[in-house]
Amino acid sequence: MGAVVTERWDGLVLGASLATLEGEAGYGAIGDGALAWRDGRIAWVGARADLPDDARQRAVEVVDAGGGWITPGLVDCHTHVVFAGDRAGEFEQRLQGASYEEIARHGGGIVSTVRATREASEDALLAQSLPRARALLADGAATLEIKSGYGLDYENERKMLRVARRIGDTLGIGVRTTFLGAHALPPEYAGRPDQYIDAVVEWLPRLHAEGLVDAVDAFCERIGFSHAQSRRVFEAAKALDLPVKLHADQLSDGGGAALVAEFGGLSADHVEYTSAEGVRAMAAAGTVAVLLPGAFHVLRETTLPPLDEFRAQGVPMAVATDCNPGTSPLLSLRQAMQLACTHFRLTPEEALRGTTVHAARALALADRGTLRVGQRADFVHWNIGQPAELCYWLGGPLARAVYAGGRKVS
Amino acid sequence: MGAVVTERWDGLVLGASLATLEGEAGYGAIGDGALAWRDGRIAWVGARADLPDDARQRAVEVVDAGGGWITPGLVDCHTHVVFAGDRAGEFEQRLQGASYEEIARHGGGIVSTVRATREASEDALLAQSLPRARALLADGAATLEIKSGYGLDYENERKMLRVARRIGDTLGIGVRTTFLGAHALPPEYAGRPDQYIDAVVEWLPRLHAEGLVDAVDAFCERIGFSHAQSRRVFEAAKALDLPVKLHADQLSDGGGAALVAEFGGLSADHVEYTSAEGVRAMAAAGTVAVLLPGAFHVLRETTLPPLDEFRAQGVPMAVATDCNPGTSPLLSLRQAMQLACTHFRLTPEEALRGTTVHAARALALADRGTLRVGQRADFVHWNIGQPAELCYWLGGPLARAVYAGGRKVS
Ligand SMILES: [Zn+2]
Ligand SMILES: [Zn+2]
Repeated sequence: MGAVVTERWDGLVLGASLATLEGEAGYGAIGDGALAWRDGRIAWVGARADLPDDARQRAVEVVDAGGGWITPGLVDCHTHVVFAGDRAGEFEQRLQGASYEEIARHGGGIVSTVRATREASEDALLAQSLPRARALLADGAATLEIKSGYGLDYENERKMLRVARRIGDTLGIGVRTTFLGAHALPPEYAGRPDQYIDAVVEWLPRLHAEGLVDAVDAFCERIGFSHAQSRRVFEAAKALDLPVKLHADQLSDGGGAALVAEFGGLSADHVEYTSAEGVRAMAAAGTVAVLLPGAFHVLRETTLPPLDEFRAQGVPMAVATDCNPGTSPLLSLRQAMQLACTHFRLTPEEALRGTTVHAARALALADRGTLRVGQRADFVHWNIGQPAELCYWLGGPLARAVYAGGRKVS
Repeated sequence: MGAVVTERWDGLVLGASLATLEGEAGYGAIGDGALAWRDGRIAWVGARADLPDDARQRAVEVVDAGGGWITPGLVDCHTHVVFAGDRAGEFEQRLQGASYEEIARHGGGIVSTVRATREASEDALLAQSLPRARALLADGAATLEIKSGYGLDYENERKMLRVARRIGDTLGIGVRTTFLGAHALPPEYAGRPDQYIDAVVEWLPRLHAEGLVDAVDAFCERIGFSHAQSRRVFEAAKALDLPVKLHADQLSDGGGAALVAEFGGLSADHVEYTSAEGVRAMAAAGTVAVLLPGAFHVLRETTLPPLDEFRAQGVPMAVATDCNPGTSPLLSLRQAMQLACTHFRLTPEEALRGTTVHAARALALADRGTLRVGQRADFVHWNIGQPAELCYWLGGPLARAVYAGGRKVS
């Protein structure tokens, strides 16, 4: 009398191929796969033929995928998705022939985003930012990194970070916040960048005490903050045991990659101008190179990141949208993958590793980025015949369903 | 007794801004607009404040848009959306370092699409092509031009054109078919291009007699067909009073633009290498320049079309996806607009004219492309704050609703 008690599954999906991304190379492909989850974690993954006989009985919900591929939920490890206003007007003026100077003189550029973001209430900022986060999610991103950096004062940086947390709660997806107070110099600190950094390092522990900060970033560039200023921000982060990352070497070689590597940083982002020395430092520190082909595309850059050096030195390469209103109005991580293949000649496999395993690593998230028992049940069911299609098509709705922590979120 | 009988409207949409595209320049913007339709045609368009008092009573259906912008339904005037198979595998091999020669030696390239298209039944071809057409529609395209050219024999070219017609019927959108028998030399005619052209000009009247051909196209290029061969195709079209267009001057200046202009052609497409003389011939003939930035992007071309010459000579510029499996896997006309602005520096207004008024002209469709009383009630309701956003964002679901002939089709 009575059946043997076996583990119950919350869900089981059958009838799709799997790209597990397990192993050092390849997609970790399983032709006719199955994946089960329980309590938000992957409980079983493998070939359908290897499923236990009572698999269907074990699962509360059985989803027949009817073909396609399942990948890990994508991880967008570099976004500025929280902002108010947009800069489409400025985009249009530039194409009509206006210079950057003219636009800046008329209050355009990042200053206009800062102004709009400061003026928006927290609820208004959430309402404006949510559709963008939803678009990223709809195209497969089950985890978003979200930076502050358009508030540039304590209250408004705090507001941005709170909105980032609320996006995660509202959409039921993973959100990692990054404090980017050192993004740009606010008008009230014009000519006083060091005093502004004093303020930034004073805000950080207060924001961290509220649980609003998962990592710390800075914009290290001739038009941003100096090496010494970025270092001060990193030292403040280190004092709180917070991981760091850096907008590094985008427009010139400012030694940013080496700096963030010196602090054992999670990632150096952009990295178009990173030197061989910078690459070696990243390799030694285990720092991920985050490639941002959207900004490269929009700014019509021509200097490629040192891709072969990264490969030769074993530096993991992630790919992210850099979703922001000025230089990368990208609402799809898949489009970033397409641009990475087109502009940077990444292989589709590199691009997919770049938005799964390596992107998770860039956020220090060991619990996602592959399909493996015990990982978070974050996965995407794609309407494709092979993984390379994720990088091949421009536009089009390819994601049929997105799951985060075992719940269907798109 | 009894109310005055006024014209009934099938539908009325209120509460959005309108980009009518009326007039020679600008968006033809109306801030708080209204648009009504009857029997598939626009019956009223203008400022909401100018609506007749009984407007709401007149309309069977009243849609409150709740903000956003309404533009004419987009017109994608150059697609190869009907094909079987895809070439994502080849895309991946190229990025892994395979040369075009190696890929061709392994049966890749256009030959593989021809093989898959020939092997597919008409129903299978429809089933494979429909999701692509649906994706284009979902991003705003209410009219598609669809070319044959992967059959390359009578039965299979016929099958492709029949599938194109069925796509229009299935989705309820406008489809214009183009016979592109002279797209590539099929293997069975290797070394005998002139004999193949004999066959093509023999098929044309038969296909036309079935009502399958709205226009005739050829691929005039060193790797395609010669000037003389393209001319023979055009003469066959002329004998049937069918309009012509040409894949012209994409990879070299083959004098294609002047040739199609000589025949009073609808459009010269690609036109990266068109000479000043070619531009003048187009201007004199009223031939539209169809810009295809997707192929430019994917092939990483660097030679821009003679945009300033087109502007100076008053040659209308259209923008299209060129949706095809080899060189332009684009599933969104909006993304083509983004690429046209980024790579070709078109203004957003030029890009929008290029996918509305000028694209309609490239298909000789005088009944669409603007919002004006009497035009087809093809329009898109976009979730945007200004028209430039259509060109600004990469990815993201911006189209809230698409209407074709007064019916909601997406
Ligand atoms: Zn950034
Ligand atoms: Zn074409």
